[in-house]
Amino acid sequence: MTAQRRLTPAAFEDVQFDGGVLGTRRETNRTVSLMDQYTKCKSSGRIDALDLTKKGIPRHRFWDSDVAKWVEAASYSLSTHPDKRLAAKVNEVADLFVAAQQPDGYINSYFTAEEPENRWTNLAGMHELYQAGHMMEAAVAHQKATGRREFLDAVRKFADYIGTVFGRGKGRKRGYPGHQEIELALVKLYRVTGEKRYLTLSKYFVDERGRKPFYFYEEAAKREKEDHYNRENMGLQDYAILQADRPVREMSDARGHAVRALYLYSAMADLAGETDDAELLGACRRLWESVTKRQMYLTGGVGQQRVFEGFDVDFSLANDTAYAETCAAISLIFFAHRMLQIDPRGEYADVMERALYNGVLSGVSLDGEKYFYANPLAVRAGVNMAAHHADTGKLYERAAWFGCACCPSNLGRLLASLGQYVYSTEPKAAWVHLYAAGSGKLDLAGKAVTLRQKTHYPWDEKIRITVNVDAPTNFALHLRIPGWCRKHNLKVNGRGIQAAVTKGYAAVQRAWRDGDVLELTLSMPIERIVAHPQVASDGGKVALQRGPIVYCLEQCDHNANVHGILLPDSAKLTARYEKDLLGGCVTISGKGVAPVTAEWKQALYHRADEASLKPTNIKAVPYALWCNRTPGYMTVWISRIPGK
Amino acid sequence: MTAQRRLTPAAFEDVQFDGGVLGTRRETNRTVSLMDQYTKCKSSGRIDALDLTKKGIPRHRFWDSDVAKWVEAASYSLSTHPDKRLAAKVNEVADLFVAAQQPDGYINSYFTAEEPENRWTNLAGMHELYQAGHMMEAAVAHQKATGRREFLDAVRKFADYIGTVFGRGKGRKRGYPGHQEIELALVKLYRVTGEKRYLTLSKYFVDERGRKPFYFYEEAAKREKEDHYNRENMGLQDYAILQADRPVREMSDARGHAVRALYLYSAMADLAGETDDAELLGACRRLWESVTKRQMYLTGGVGQQRVFEGFDVDFSLANDTAYAETCAAISLIFFAHRMLQIDPRGEYADVMERALYNGVLSGVSLDGEKYFYANPLAVRAGVNMAAHHADTGKLYERAAWFGCACCPSNLGRLLASLGQYVYSTEPKAAWVHLYAAGSGKLDLAGKAVTLRQKTHYPWDEKIRITVNVDAPTNFALHLRIPGWCRKHNLKVNGRGIQAAVTKGYAAVQRAWRDGDVLELTLSMPIERIVAHPQVASDGGKVALQRGPIVYCLEQCDHNANVHGILLPDSAKLTARYEKDLLGGCVTISGKGVAPVTAEWKQALYHRADEASLKPTNIKAVPYALWCNRTPGYMTVWISRIPGK
Repeated sequence: MTAQRRLTPAAFEDVQFDGGVLGTRRETNRTVSLMDQYTKCKSSGRIDALDLTKKGIPRHRFWDSDVAKWVEAASYSLSTHPDKRLAAKVNEVADLFVAAQQPDGYINSYFTAEEPENRWTNLAGMHELYQAGHMMEAAVAHQKATGRREFLDAVRKFADYIGTVFGRGKGRKRGYPGHQEIELALVKLYRVTGEKRYLTLSKYFVDERGRKPFYFYEEAAKREKEDHYNRENMGLQDYAILQADRPVREMSDARGHAVRALYLYSAMADLAGETDDAELLGACRRLWESVTKRQMYLTGGVGQQRVFEGFDVDFSLANDTAYAETCAAISLIFFAHRMLQIDPRGEYADVMERALYNGVLSGVSLDGEKYFYANPLAVRAGVNMAAHHADTGKLYERAAWFGCACCPSNLGRLLASLGQYVYSTEPKAAWVHLYAAGSGKLDLAGKAVTLRQKTHYPWDEKIRITVNVDAPTNFALHLRIPGWCRKHNLKVNGRGIQAAVTKGYAAVQRAWRDGDVLELTLSMPIERIVAHPQVASDGGKVALQRGPIVYCLEQCDHNANVHGILLPDSAKLTARYEKDLLGGCVTISGKGVAPVTAEWKQALYHRADEASLKPTNIKAVPYALWCNRTPGYMTVWISRIPGK
Repeated sequence: MTAQRRLTPAAFEDVQFDGGVLGTRRETNRTVSLMDQYTKCKSSGRIDALDLTKKGIPRHRFWDSDVAKWVEAASYSLSTHPDKRLAAKVNEVADLFVAAQQPDGYINSYFTAEEPENRWTNLAGMHELYQAGHMMEAAVAHQKATGRREFLDAVRKFADYIGTVFGRGKGRKRGYPGHQEIELALVKLYRVTGEKRYLTLSKYFVDERGRKPFYFYEEAAKREKEDHYNRENMGLQDYAILQADRPVREMSDARGHAVRALYLYSAMADLAGETDDAELLGACRRLWESVTKRQMYLTGGVGQQRVFEGFDVDFSLANDTAYAETCAAISLIFFAHRMLQIDPRGEYADVMERALYNGVLSGVSLDGEKYFYANPLAVRAGVNMAAHHADTGKLYERAAWFGCACCPSNLGRLLASLGQYVYSTEPKAAWVHLYAAGSGKLDLAGKAVTLRQKTHYPWDEKIRITVNVDAPTNFALHLRIPGWCRKHNLKVNGRGIQAAVTKGYAAVQRAWRDGDVLELTLSMPIERIVAHPQVASDGGKVALQRGPIVYCLEQCDHNANVHGILLPDSAKLTARYEKDLLGGCVTISGKGVAPVTAEWKQALYHRADEASLKPTNIKAVPYALWCNRTPGYMTVWISRIPGK
């Protein structure tokens, strides 16, 4: 079986959005968040820190990566929407990276200014290779957006230098990063430059990882001073947090820090696809199953717990203490997207869509200026371990910025490059993974095909796709039939057709003529969802989903405490588009029952037969949109009353 | 209104138990746990640390308190059950305390050996006054049990010395303990010695607490070296953890470290009762409401969270992350018992009984050798923040011992002195607070009254009390009618009587003759309990209770995951005494429904209408007895299907 990458994602520059959820969010990202993030990087000292001519200012071991990710995000945006003011900022920052480069190629503002003697002595904790990876991704994007080569040349020189430091050759360090990222960045660099050595270096980092003797142990033993990361007694559990407890090809369970894990798995998929490595793809598949079949929240959030921002154990999916870092959901999209190109199965696109519309978009406020780091599925009175603080009495809300500010610019780069997730191509086929108003110009082995989507998806079930070709073109149009959809309907030029659905995609093969119209209806009734019986935290509960959208109850829409509401299976639920609510969205209404606080007075516990349940109106809003009004309690999972 | 203490608790030495839950647990405590705790104190170095002639051995700032509490516990046991082997150990340890005393009266093995220059420089963190309090309680018990005065004399000298160090007088430190305890110990010392200065010193510590300028800030500023407790930037939140953010008379909400809080409240009740201080009693009442009406688990567990082992906010009562330290439930009994003597209301005894039979007895295994520090109300797969560790994949279990070993000896001293909680007296009245097979010799203003209880309570609803008097004696017998009891029945010498129930007690006033028999029936059907609508974690759920016993579902009794079981309100539940199970207990059986794991295969989420619920047998066991078989999942709260 081949592991070769089969599909090619569309270039995001060739995909346009016409409003809709994705288009609107991308637009807010472009017009608000990107400058907002620049301003906060600037005011927090992250950009000045990069300027090595400035002395005596604070610098931090992973600030460079925040700035690099912002350059990457802003460059993507410049590629689709030229913007002189933004371009000036981007170039200014790219120049700082170039200026910070040392004669041997090294770039790292913290080590160069603060601890030049300690370069590469603490890979486990100091994020040097992680930062290098983000610089490479930024430089690739910057060159593509601006045509300027300086930053790209600088990171190539950096990568070449790294290649002289690390590897199995004599005198080299057999190290690998404590926080993965450079592995997938090197694949990008390889794709842009065609230089195979970058692919080889990526493969080295991936395959060296977790071998014995453990590099992180060896390097810690060599360091003289004690520091936070110098754990001579690091045990297997600690290596597992860094996915460094065993070789990656032997992994079956996703464990440890979630973002590191998913960046690693993404790189593994990249390498499997580039080098036709079926064994490596096998490991990717096992890890995919572990993440998505045993450890993923309904929202696509992953990494259940905050102790080490990571995975927990199978079926441990607590809602109120859910960590589900925004970056982790984004990384899951990276992984899903790579797997999808190798092996186009609906389940990869399903997860990609689930994470995008729910656990990723929840990460940023509608106004584009506030962010979630953790994305819990329930908020209640009291200590919320997800909330990165243990303040009592404070309800969880989005923050304007973070000390560890990885999530905002990760959202920035995902949203600015969103187009690539919508379509893929093969020489004689086009694939539609996501439905969104807009258009994509695709290149089918030299033949230009434009697909124009007209739809109110995800609020509406109808999608109308117009095909534009220069001349009649024979190709297969693969349309994703989402896993959540029980009934779909297809028409070409007004006439119903039958198209076999294989692995989640309906293929319509024909000689397409310019102006052909395909109408797809994806039936999206409101569904009550239950979780696997081993998920303790969702026992006896249902969640509401309609199409790809997961819903929640927010306290501001309810009289009864949302956590006390019970929803009968028999209760009729109604979906309604509310154009003035939360930027326009479909809400779900119905009637449940709930206890009445006013009846309780001075008792904490009552006999059930002495406490009444009264009918109460329920109104559910999309999870991604919660906390854009009055902060309050929230729950995705609702107690269920089974029975017709 | 008077705040004077009205009732006098029975001397525990005069109360006997004839088997039953309390008698059996007390017997295991006496025959197993006390020597077990001595052995572990010895092998962990705690006892050697007290011997100042030993040099170069490990010592710890609060080890003395563990040993003192063990002396207290063992002394209580010696008072009821002489035991030469135990007495030898107790005297050996008491002698070590006496030998450790410095010429000025100071006793503290850690500071004397390790940091003599830092005595009293860090009251917030170093537990010197806390340890002193436990020595006082131990010495009082030791003198009473053995008649030997040396230890008591030593702690009196220590207390007198403390009185010269602290206070409002010139040259004294205006300090108070970071961990309360000495306050209630000084009241005990006052009661035994009659020396009012101990009461005055206690009152000083209580009333000085939380005044501005904050002593803990001032002392931290004075220390030169930085240490864990030296937080110059301590904020109001940090003072609140130590109940030192405001004067105690202004407190209304129980906040901060739960054991510290409840030791403080107990001392406040002691002082209110001794000095007829209505204002202080008012604060106690407000704090009682805060603890028991807004922050107490159904099991009587308190202190919801582990961040600072403390209270959280109102109605925050998460089950899986419940901390509910064993010591905190014990401290709640101390507080309840003191309030009950001042103002005999059933609600105080109800809480005392609830905590005792559930959240306290859960703290020790049936074999008497393993302990819970935290007492969660649910155990599931994954990280359990209550468990004092973040090991993934490890299910929560009792431990043989702890680095911070406060709970075992606290259980030891409670169980060894259990008799005092059963009865109280007034000159012309006897009060029965707890029902348990056994007898109590009471002294009603010089008149001897013995009450003999024959009952299988808490498993059975019938209690037969025989009154023994030397001559016919007129007194009121106050019998507690528990808050959980909806219907009771009283007979004297076989004839039904009506007795008014006032504040939870039925009073039977008569000229009692020797051999009079009172039969009390406390109807105890199985009850489904619901929590206040604002308790998010119990939303849509019921718990099972029968009499004072709270039940739970343990995984080893169930096929379905206990967290997925739903219990219809209409399901018939049956109570059955099983003599061979868990030392003999009443279990509750019935039929619920649950999803079937085998049906699920490879999906984490399903549509509700595609996943079936099948009937499943439910068997609930007393919460206090959980984790005495195969460790596994557990839940007190069960998803409910409302409706007749």
